[in-house]
Amino acid sequence: MATAGKVITCKAAVAWEPNKPLVIEDIEVAPPQVAEIRIKIVATAVCHTDLYYLLESMPKDGFPAVLGHEAAGLVESVGPGVTEFQSGDKVIPLFLPQCRQCRFCKSPKTNQCELGVDAGHGDVMGPEDSRLTCKGKKLVPFAGTSTFSEFTVVNQISVAKIDHAAPLDKVCLLGCGVSTGFGAAVNTAKVEPGSTCAVFGLGAIGLAAVMGCKFAGAKKIFAVDINPDKFKKAKDFGATHFLNPKDYDKPISAVLAELTAGGVDYALECVGNVGVMRSALESCVKGWGVCVLVGWTNMHDITTRPIQLIAGRTWKGSFFGGFKGRDGVPDMVKAYLDKKVKLDEFITHNMTLAQINDAIELMKQGKCIRTVMSVCPQ
Amino acid sequence: MATAGKVITCKAAVAWEPNKPLVIEDIEVAPPQVAEIRIKIVATAVCHTDLYYLLESMPKDGFPAVLGHEAAGLVESVGPGVTEFQSGDKVIPLFLPQCRQCRFCKSPKTNQCELGVDAGHGDVMGPEDSRLTCKGKKLVPFAGTSTFSEFTVVNQISVAKIDHAAPLDKVCLLGCGVSTGFGAAVNTAKVEPGSTCAVFGLGAIGLAAVMGCKFAGAKKIFAVDINPDKFKKAKDFGATHFLNPKDYDKPISAVLAELTAGGVDYALECVGNVGVMRSALESCVKGWGVCVLVGWTNMHDITTRPIQLIAGRTWKGSFFGGFKGRDGVPDMVKAYLDKKVKLDEFITHNMTLAQINDAIELMKQGKCIRTVMSVCPQ
Repeated sequence: MATAGKVITCKAAVAWEPNKPLVIEDIEVAPPQVAEIRIKIVATAVCHTDLYYLLESMPKDGFPAVLGHEAAGLVESVGPGVTEFQSGDKVIPLFLPQCRQCRFCKSPKTNQCELGVDAGHGDVMGPEDSRLTCKGKKLVPFAGTSTFSEFTVVNQISVAKIDHAAPLDKVCLLGCGVSTGFGAAVNTAKVEPGSTCAVFGLGAIGLAAVMGCKFAGAKKIFAVDINPDKFKKAKDFGATHFLNPKDYDKPISAVLAELTAGGVDYALECVGNVGVMRSALESCVKGWGVCVLVGWTNMHDITTRPIQLIAGRTWKGSFFGGFKGRDGVPDMVKAYLDKKVKLDEFITHNMTLAQINDAIELMKQGKCIRTVMSVCPQ
Repeated sequence: MATAGKVITCKAAVAWEPNKPLVIEDIEVAPPQVAEIRIKIVATAVCHTDLYYLLESMPKDGFPAVLGHEAAGLVESVGPGVTEFQSGDKVIPLFLPQCRQCRFCKSPKTNQCELGVDAGHGDVMGPEDSRLTCKGKKLVPFAGTSTFSEFTVVNQISVAKIDHAAPLDKVCLLGCGVSTGFGAAVNTAKVEPGSTCAVFGLGAIGLAAVMGCKFAGAKKIFAVDINPDKFKKAKDFGATHFLNPKDYDKPISAVLAELTAGGVDYALECVGNVGVMRSALESCVKGWGVCVLVGWTNMHDITTRPIQLIAGRTWKGSFFGGFKGRDGVPDMVKAYLDKKVKLDEFITHNMTLAQINDAIELMKQGKCIRTVMSVCPQ
């Protein structure tokens, strides 16, 4: 493209400080350096983890930043040494890299690439690597992706090349939420045919987990949420039973134990709340029940009694649904194109990047599943 | 035997109240009822769980009781309907039953028989079923076994018939501690060849876990204890590295992470302390590390940060080493007779039942691994 090798000036939503509205600014995006790829973002969605950074964890040196990590776009240009990508490729940026070289990438047991910082950030674009500046200030990259921008720069190990037939305004959801929930059920919990599952929290990740449980052949899928407005959508994705904890005067784990003669085989926590994480574990049947933490939080400890585990329950977690991104995301795109997984049904709102604060507000209020923002035209 | 069908008067160590020395008393042991077996106890050991009941959990309606659950003996007589056992059989009583009928017994995933109360007691001999009385009072059965007695009555689903060649004063240890630790490594953690393990706490269960890790082919086995006197024995059982947390001014999880480039593949908590349970989990490598709780406690919550699990660690527990007792204990006896597992090396003291308070004192002070008490002559 004509822009290759040059600084691009474009629009981005800048988070100047924690807990404040984002500001649409003109920013400068430097050309990609060695092993880097500059991507034209076509569509990006808002995920709750963006809000977690902005409103909850608020890291001290984390601002000004460009948030965003659930997106799809086109390769604009590549830096030296990049051979697997070329201008025009359809891609999905990955907040969790896959270097293919480390002992984690080489193990079939995990997707926790050594180059993902502490499994919490996957941030191979550290603050010092930022290619984004605004008003003379370096913008802190978020999750190694920073997709709330018309252009961004990402390391090649954090980019999945996808089928050219993929509609970017749909498959962007595979960059985080849908892959995370679906994979948590299929890859991490390894839900078995005929089993009984419970999904706690029916946002995008929870609905994707419901879809994953159904895909894996679960017989009963309990959808649990304190907002009963979510139940209809959960039914569309395959849930068979619906529970609002507010309807009961006993713990939801006790309700589930009664309804299932002892507890569910698999419980997926898709909220990011340590109290719900305990409930999910304690909703599992003794002997073999598996509870997977999918929702993101790290502000408080999770707790339970030792007997819960000694009695045979397993407590584990899932990060990006257990997918090794460069391999798994293209597979998920193909599954969507083959109509094996749904994406369109997650999208409740379409906006533009200029409306990002409205999109954030919708998510804060729990009034959307996913808002997809168009950023650049293809 | 001549005693069949009659009440037997014999010696037992009675726990009249919590936190007091046991008292050797003459007790009456009624004949076994339907599906029950009366056992002449030949040898019994003291396990820390006996002390936990006596000194820590001290259940309100749990006294007077006859403790003891790690023992071996001979069938004295059987109740109506018992066909698989006969007088003279060598047996090991089981604190966790195996009914072979319930969905848990039928699943290969667990040993948590439905008839074990909450996985915490395995007490199919409830207080109302007690066949033991003293001075006109029913004695509360402990763990369904009550082996600190010359004779006891146990349900047939809680009895393992073992090889007639087995020395009862050795294989009694397979009734709890050694099977629990060994099985936690082999059955629950499923330690893989070439892996790196850490065992926290080097009592009988911890040493058995070390033996299990070695049996499974672990390459490095870190033995962790605040009492360095335990290290020599741990080495005998296969430990390769030795760590005293008191020697370091940082958490032992950080020490292990440094020594293993990120953490161990498997960590086994064999203390029964919620702080150590957290350390054990956090000593595991991200991605695939598995922490198994083996030590018994249920007075406090276990805690950790969600990221520990989301980063790929698994937290689980083991009860009786994952063995289905009626199948697994005879197999372990055979493994001992075939010299595949050690038992003699666990036994640091030999006493008689009359010396039980001395045996308890030794365990309280951490001065023994196992004290085996001879009860009745064969």
